[in-house]
Amino acid sequence: MIAHGSTSPSLQLTHEGRLKHFLTLDGLDRAMLTAILDTADSFIEVGERTIKKVPLLRGRTVVNLFFESSTRTRSTFELAAKRLSADVLNLDINTSATSKGESLSDTLLNLEAMASDMFVVRHSQSGAPHFIAETVTPGVAIINAGDGRHAHPTQAMLDMLTIRQHKGGFEGLKVAVVGDILHSRVARSQIRALNTLGVAEVRVIAPATLLPRDIESLGCKVEYDMSHGMRDLDVVIMLRLQLERMEGALLPSEREFYRLYGLNQEKLSLAKPDCIVMHPGPINRGVEIESEVADGSQSVILNQVTNGIAVRMAVMSMAMSGQVSERVKARPAEVRT
Amino acid sequence: MIAHGSTSPSLQLTHEGRLKHFLTLDGLDRAMLTAILDTADSFIEVGERTIKKVPLLRGRTVVNLFFESSTRTRSTFELAAKRLSADVLNLDINTSATSKGESLSDTLLNLEAMASDMFVVRHSQSGAPHFIAETVTPGVAIINAGDGRHAHPTQAMLDMLTIRQHKGGFEGLKVAVVGDILHSRVARSQIRALNTLGVAEVRVIAPATLLPRDIESLGCKVEYDMSHGMRDLDVVIMLRLQLERMEGALLPSEREFYRLYGLNQEKLSLAKPDCIVMHPGPINRGVEIESEVADGSQSVILNQVTNGIAVRMAVMSMAMSGQVSERVKARPAEVRT
Amino acid sequence: MIAHGSTSPSLQLTHEGRLKHFLTLDGLDRAMLTAILDTADSFIEVGERTIKKVPLLRGRTVVNLFFESSTRTRSTFELAAKRLSADVLNLDINTSATSKGESLSDTLLNLEAMASDMFVVRHSQSGAPHFIAETVTPGVAIINAGDGRHAHPTQAMLDMLTIRQHKGGFEGLKVAVVGDILHSRVARSQIRALNTLGVAEVRVIAPATLLPRDIESLGCKVEYDMSHGMRDLDVVIMLRLQLERMEGALLPSEREFYRLYGLNQEKLSLAKPDCIVMHPGPINRGVEIESEVADGSQSVILNQVTNGIAVRMAVMSMAMSGQVSERVKARPAEVRT
Repeated sequence: MIAHGSTSPSLQLTHEGRLKHFLTLDGLDRAMLTAILDTADSFIEVGERTIKKVPLLRGRTVVNLFFESSTRTRSTFELAAKRLSADVLNLDINTSATSKGESLSDTLLNLEAMASDMFVVRHSQSGAPHFIAETVTPGVAIINAGDGRHAHPTQAMLDMLTIRQHKGGFEGLKVAVVGDILHSRVARSQIRALNTLGVAEVRVIAPATLLPRDIESLGCKVEYDMSHGMRDLDVVIMLRLQLERMEGALLPSEREFYRLYGLNQEKLSLAKPDCIVMHPGPINRGVEIESEVADGSQSVILNQVTNGIAVRMAVMSMAMSGQVSERVKARPAEVRT
Repeated sequence: MIAHGSTSPSLQLTHEGRLKHFLTLDGLDRAMLTAILDTADSFIEVGERTIKKVPLLRGRTVVNLFFESSTRTRSTFELAAKRLSADVLNLDINTSATSKGESLSDTLLNLEAMASDMFVVRHSQSGAPHFIAETVTPGVAIINAGDGRHAHPTQAMLDMLTIRQHKGGFEGLKVAVVGDILHSRVARSQIRALNTLGVAEVRVIAPATLLPRDIESLGCKVEYDMSHGMRDLDVVIMLRLQLERMEGALLPSEREFYRLYGLNQEKLSLAKPDCIVMHPGPINRGVEIESEVADGSQSVILNQVTNGIAVRMAVMSMAMSGQVSERVKARPAEVRT
Repeated sequence: MIAHGSTSPSLQLTHEGRLKHFLTLDGLDRAMLTAILDTADSFIEVGERTIKKVPLLRGRTVVNLFFESSTRTRSTFELAAKRLSADVLNLDINTSATSKGESLSDTLLNLEAMASDMFVVRHSQSGAPHFIAETVTPGVAIINAGDGRHAHPTQAMLDMLTIRQHKGGFEGLKVAVVGDILHSRVARSQIRALNTLGVAEVRVIAPATLLPRDIESLGCKVEYDMSHGMRDLDVVIMLRLQLERMEGALLPSEREFYRLYGLNQEKLSLAKPDCIVMHPGPINRGVEIESEVADGSQSVILNQVTNGIAVRMAVMSMAMSGQVSERVKARPAEVRT
């Protein structure tokens, strides 16, 4: 129903190359990713202040449109929006207007007509945020908060921010993404971002049954054996085992998965001694990561959470600013009947 | 259980004739309706600003009391209140205090004691907002957000604002309200407002089974045949077919209804060429309106949504101001034990 | 699972004896309770202003963590936080992250990492707020909004504020707490507060089946007969009959309970003529209190509600301020990996 494929870069960028939506990392170059990280860095400092507020989105209306429920992700966007001084409206779309038989487009056009400035969209269907940005409400800044298996670009960017904070940059780094690549909405975004930012090597470590067919075309090395894959790593990114997304017997058992691909202190010792451990959360302790590692000195998992707010503040303020600059230029053509 | 009938004008007006609640259009004269429209006009401009905020309700507490769930209406009031800088508390009363056996009155008195300034009330029983304003918490500004089949006065006023914007005024206009008049909570309010504002002619177009008995006493002409009723119209207001409110076989079928009373391009061509098309939303495409018309150049449906925020800001700020003026005068008698 | 017993005073106080969490009245001396009441008094005036807002928590993030649903209590904390200018995040934890198998500790550590400043915690297990303050997130101010049968300290403090307002102080007062002491989370807190503040006599009036064994050790006199217990009272505090908490036949029937322990005008006439009547709400009219008394001139039940906002503003602002003072001192040791 919702088409997606290659996204034209012009969909999320203004004519001057500024961000106006944030849908995917596809088509964003190293300069843009670096600009997002630099902006996020400036917001890290805001989170440490007594008054954690900046007026960048003051008087703006941000609508959290969650077609798929995710309290955790919604909370981070809600906090990010409030710290930018925006007014926030939370809509759980499953239970609201669409139940009266209204089409998705009509719901969105109505929200736009209420002078909404930004939609944060979470949807189980890949491509839904693109569809909205391209077809329905191009004048509202669309932020992708996770669509199907396709992308979760703010998660990938908060990972990049965490790596840069701890490693000083990306050059020469060896980074592995471990676990259920197939069902992950973040693994693709991560691999793309790591390559764009110029790491030395990206590895994926997973059983063949949890790897998409085209995985190597994304620019990464495949390892089926974790002991081998962990060698010389600077960064290991564990994925959450999406137990709820698995259909059928793709893997023997949780216990078997943990034995082969779970991260424990022993496997971690095969990486570089200063290798950092990342995980998008929520953690399945004892399924994909051992508590000793999750809570250990190499874990930066809670830093990722802190960085998540900063990255969301960054893309929200940048996309809003891009929309405004485009609106100023497009004024004569903007009038709607 | 809840009585309603003729509302005394003094219920929603102060001694000086200022609005202090907004319950119904009954008893509001042309000067008052015009004042609401003028105030709303000034808020239209606020919605177009970068910073869509005015400080009129700053530090005020607005409670959305929805005894009947309506995400769409609640969202418009929530946005209106936030743009007036109020603090907003959303209470879905079905699931909260009343489940502990507390009476409606006690719940409301408690909310009043928390220093609430305004209740936005949606209730399935006609007259509930009047009852609250008259009996329970007269010192809290009550805004009717739809009660039973009785009234939905902010919807009617946003319709009037939309007509005035597009037609410059009301004199000489011929306006029709089409569809399920019987189950509509807005049709009565619309007919009254149109007559008060001095249009030339109000028509209702509907099958006999969807018309209340006393309809002509409201001051309108009845047409059963749409082809005839559309002639010379300046404004056609389609009603939503309240499929969920219908009991029994009042109409043959959706398809039959659409054939007879659905608005398509052909029927619209019988009206004046600049006739505008209105609908309160959410639209049932292909049930009461054809997509070509809903999305066409004569449709002002999305303008209505935009105007809905402005009208709600207007009545909320006016009623708050009326309450304050009354409180200042009534101070000595106000002390409660 | 969650341990609790005697709480070390140092858990909720800084080294200088300032409040940094608000978990229980145990260990708080008369000076501290008086400081809370004085601070609350200053906020009463804020609730009477047109602009009911002070900037004390501006830019702070307050998370309402309700592991047990209570719309009424949540609303009072939400309003209190908003009037202190905080950003508020409401999390109903039953339906969110924990359903993905995440541990309570991980959920809390994540919220802390989002730079949350305060958790308002409601939990069905006694000791949960203490556990969080002691073990999980000591750097986040924890406010107890009711834990199991253990405590509901803001409720007790709003009762004290109401007594002081109406009686001028505590010396010489005779106060009774009537009803289901056994299942009450507030009775213990009330008895402790009354004794700390120096009333002349605290009585509990209840059937033996609704009294905990150790009740007299809290410092109160037990009365089984209400006619006797009401004599010479200055203050009578009725408890809500927690019908939903009762298991088995602890009392013969609601009607029998009402006959013996329900407060009616006749029983009230046995107390001093200016005895005030209190109840935490929501009221079960005709179960533990007669409508004539609840709505009568001696009732201060709605004053309690108003005072509830002021007391919550007081403990929230005091605990925040205590946290800040501790953080400044502890800075070198605060760095987390």
